Amino acid sequence: MGSLPTDNLESLSMCSQNPLDPDEFRRQALRTFNIDFLADYYKNVESYPVRSQVEPGYLRKRLPETTPNNSESIETILQDVTNDIIPGLTHWQSPNYFAYFPSSGSIAGFLGEMLSTGFNVVGFNWMSSPAATELESIVMNWLGQMLTLPKSFLFSSDGSSGGGGVLQGTTCEAILCTLTAARDKMLNKIGRENINQLVVYASDQTHCAMQKAAQIAGINPKNFRAIATSKSTNFSLFPSSLQSTILADIESGLVPLFLCATVGTTSSTAVDPIGPLCEVAKMHGIWVHVDAAYAGCACICPEFRHFIDGVEEADSFSLNAHKWFFTTLDCCCLWVKDSSSLVKARSTNPEYLKNKASESKQVIDYKDWQVALSRRFRSMKLWLVLRSYGIANLRTFLRSHVKMAKHFQGLIGMDNRFEIVVPRTFSMQPIFENDYIEAQTNEINAKLLESVNASGKIYMTHVVVGGERHVTGAWKVVQEHTDAILGELDGTIVDIVG
Amino acid sequence: MGSLPTDNLESLSMCSQNPLDPDEFRRQALRTFNIDFLADYYKNVESYPVRSQVEPGYLRKRLPETTPNNSESIETILQDVTNDIIPGLTHWQSPNYFAYFPSSGSIAGFLGEMLSTGFNVVGFNWMSSPAATELESIVMNWLGQMLTLPKSFLFSSDGSSGGGGVLQGTTCEAILCTLTAARDKMLNKIGRENINQLVVYASDQTHCAMQKAAQIAGINPKNFRAIATSKSTNFSLFPSSLQSTILADIESGLVPLFLCATVGTTSSTAVDPIGPLCEVAKMHGIWVHVDAAYAGCACICPEFRHFIDGVEEADSFSLNAHKWFFTTLDCCCLWVKDSSSLVKARSTNPEYLKNKASESKQVIDYKDWQVALSRRFRSMKLWLVLRSYGIANLRTFLRSHVKMAKHFQGLIGMDNRFEIVVPRTFSMQPIFENDYIEAQTNEINAKLLESVNASGKIYMTHVVVGGERHVTGAWKVVQEHTDAILGELDGTIVDIVG
Repeated sequence: MGSLPTDNLESLSMCSQNPLDPDEFRRQALRTFNIDFLADYYKNVESYPVRSQVEPGYLRKRLPETTPNNSESIETILQDVTNDIIPGLTHWQSPNYFAYFPSSGSIAGFLGEMLSTGFNVVGFNWMSSPAATELESIVMNWLGQMLTLPKSFLFSSDGSSGGGGVLQGTTCEAILCTLTAARDKMLNKIGRENINQLVVYASDQTHCAMQKAAQIAGINPKNFRAIATSKSTNFSLFPSSLQSTILADIESGLVPLFLCATVGTTSSTAVDPIGPLCEVAKMHGIWVHVDAAYAGCACICPEFRHFIDGVEEADSFSLNAHKWFFTTLDCCCLWVKDSSSLVKARSTNPEYLKNKASESKQVIDYKDWQVALSRRFRSMKLWLVLRSYGIANLRTFLRSHVKMAKHFQGLIGMDNRFEIVVPRTFSMQPIFENDYIEAQTNEINAKLLESVNASGKIYMTHVVVGGERHVTGAWKVVQEHTDAILGELDGTIVDIVG
Repeated sequence: MGSLPTDNLESLSMCSQNPLDPDEFRRQALRTFNIDFLADYYKNVESYPVRSQVEPGYLRKRLPETTPNNSESIETILQDVTNDIIPGLTHWQSPNYFAYFPSSGSIAGFLGEMLSTGFNVVGFNWMSSPAATELESIVMNWLGQMLTLPKSFLFSSDGSSGGGGVLQGTTCEAILCTLTAARDKMLNKIGRENINQLVVYASDQTHCAMQKAAQIAGINPKNFRAIATSKSTNFSLFPSSLQSTILADIESGLVPLFLCATVGTTSSTAVDPIGPLCEVAKMHGIWVHVDAAYAGCACICPEFRHFIDGVEEADSFSLNAHKWFFTTLDCCCLWVKDSSSLVKARSTNPEYLKNKASESKQVIDYKDWQVALSRRFRSMKLWLVLRSYGIANLRTFLRSHVKMAKHFQGLIGMDNRFEIVVPRTFSMQPIFENDYIEAQTNEINAKLLESVNASGKIYMTHVVVGGERHVTGAWKVVQEHTDAILGELDGTIVDIVG
């Protein structure tokens, strides 16, 4: 975007004629905005209530009803960010944040995002910005090697493997892409008229992203199987349960299509046994996707790698670098063995995107590997994280988080009002799991959780990671609120899944 | 994420123990990285070849094959960005970039992205970060009012309207969400077994995102109608063509479902007549989506608003603020009238996301309005753009771009080797349109385009926007290459769509 012809300018007072004028960029980004704004935010983040304490509709009362007619200064806007936005944030970057899952930012991830935002290229195909495509393929191979994924999931230098990795926004998109690939492959074989016969398998612990993706892909909602798990198998999907569910479906004339196995479920970080599940699935020609959204990163440590044993038999594998790998949202890493089936399920080739490089088949056009056409330069931030930490430090970080969760587990074990229901596997210590406990305890748990979170001191749902000081502090907050609530009752045991 | 227990640290040399340590953040982001890196990039961007001149596979030759084991300094990494990445970029922010569509960054958009990356909240529901949800609803109302969208597309203060806006990544996601909403609404009426009967309508000029979304949603590929347009209607979709196509489908026992009408098509910026098309669609109960991805923003100027006349009869409307509205990728604005149908087609409510605010129905949980569950705080950058420019300046910018395209049109008109094929409507002057011209000219056009782009001086596909100096310069480059190519032939006329 070039500069404006000057005869057209009436009121471009504070905003430059060129929306990316270098000097103005320097002035506003460096001197006015100042990285200090965010540095101060990180410095003060512990002093804010972790879970925002605002009431629904708070912001509408504070902001004007319409866009201003004239420009406002960045100073004014930043003042409003401090006064009106920050109180409405739930501080995912706070060391006292233990809810949902970790959303781990880092300086390297932030700088990577700044670079890709600054370049602002739209890398839908190779030609539209070769570096965006090529860096993505390279870092996906790097990370794949760190996880010792089989070669069939990686790009080979001569392009013969057929496999490779791609960055998606989120797991739901990754599942949607692989599911539609599996769906179209199957429908080409059995005929489109059988779309309502296709069945998708998961466990009752599988993330709701799977169900959402199935809904979007047009899978009959009646054919979504959330197979029951139990405490006896630590909530992991039992291969014989899968097998019997599949056989019953075949008996009814249905067509098994897709299995999502999870390594580290959202509720209890359960690990589905990938190898044995793949064995069952392969008998019936089912596409197996392994969703290791949260826990997958830990598998770069040799001692945790066994959790994804059997992945060589799966068709696709994904993890979220924006969860537990220091890469800011969004950055879901997906590897597939048969990339051509991904491409077939969504390839479009209009006139305006035709180019020599694509036609030569020497390049990847990632637009055909994902839902959207346009795509951000996401590999930049992952590249910065991998390089600025290096394998050794990344492993040290992940191990230290697991150690902190062990510490938390130890603290729980010393308080006999709490009971550990399922074992801790990674760095998350699920607590207040209401599904598997009795009515009265359930109610107490819910009351305790709301009481803890309303305090603003910590925010919990199922997840515990963080610094040792904060973990110990968190446990103190839980105990204080337990004292207060159980004071009204008498010595009931509070169940803990963890 | 908290700080590491110190006994675990071996080699965290350059990287801090806390991935977001405020002092380290200040040092690396402010002093080491320095906003100057990007400011210098903008300063020098004109000196780079616009379309990257690298060969496929260039980066694999330059980067190591594996992740480094130890941390590398940000200075080293930035040096590699300069040496290895920048040569592989196609410079979408260059004033000499005239290809595909504009991807207009701005300082305000950049700062907004920095803030949302810095906060790194995951706003899937209201509770997970109230400000992220509420600011999005507010700015979508602001922008909706600027476009004078009917109230049925906006949030009402008492929540009674049923309509409202949401930020998606791209148009393909916006179409996929509305299409699945329409699909499930229809299938609930006529039964799921009829999914293969559903028909989707568009013109042969509609963006390929529509076809891709239909494929993903499980619409039978045989039932995707790309209705022919012609030069006689400036490539806009003729209501009578739509009507006869629909009638033929009904005759064959099919079920009309969805129409995508476009305001400003990708190839020729054609405008489909929304009002008359809605009239036809409504007779048959078809969901009408209006895709104004590129041109929609111009409708904040009263003199362009007529292009979306009739939108009040449509069901959904989208535009990309990351195209021609100074908001960095990705930022697609979608408004719908019946948000409940969006939610029904993808709602999931697992235990770990249950909370008081959602159950009170006083809040929006945007996770149910989009494909993914997780979502970035995209409204921050749009809010910064709207406030730091203000309505008056935004209009001035858009008008100046249209003026530049007029100037380019004037230049073409003075060179009798070129012929204007379709009229210019907005700020894009499509040229080298190969579909509608004869064989020899077609070949010359392709040769000319490749010759111009290989020069690295400008990069064109169909699009012209930019500063007057750059537009004039671009025309000079085209003319020089025309001289060279036509020198080998004799006085052939080169067709221009524009």
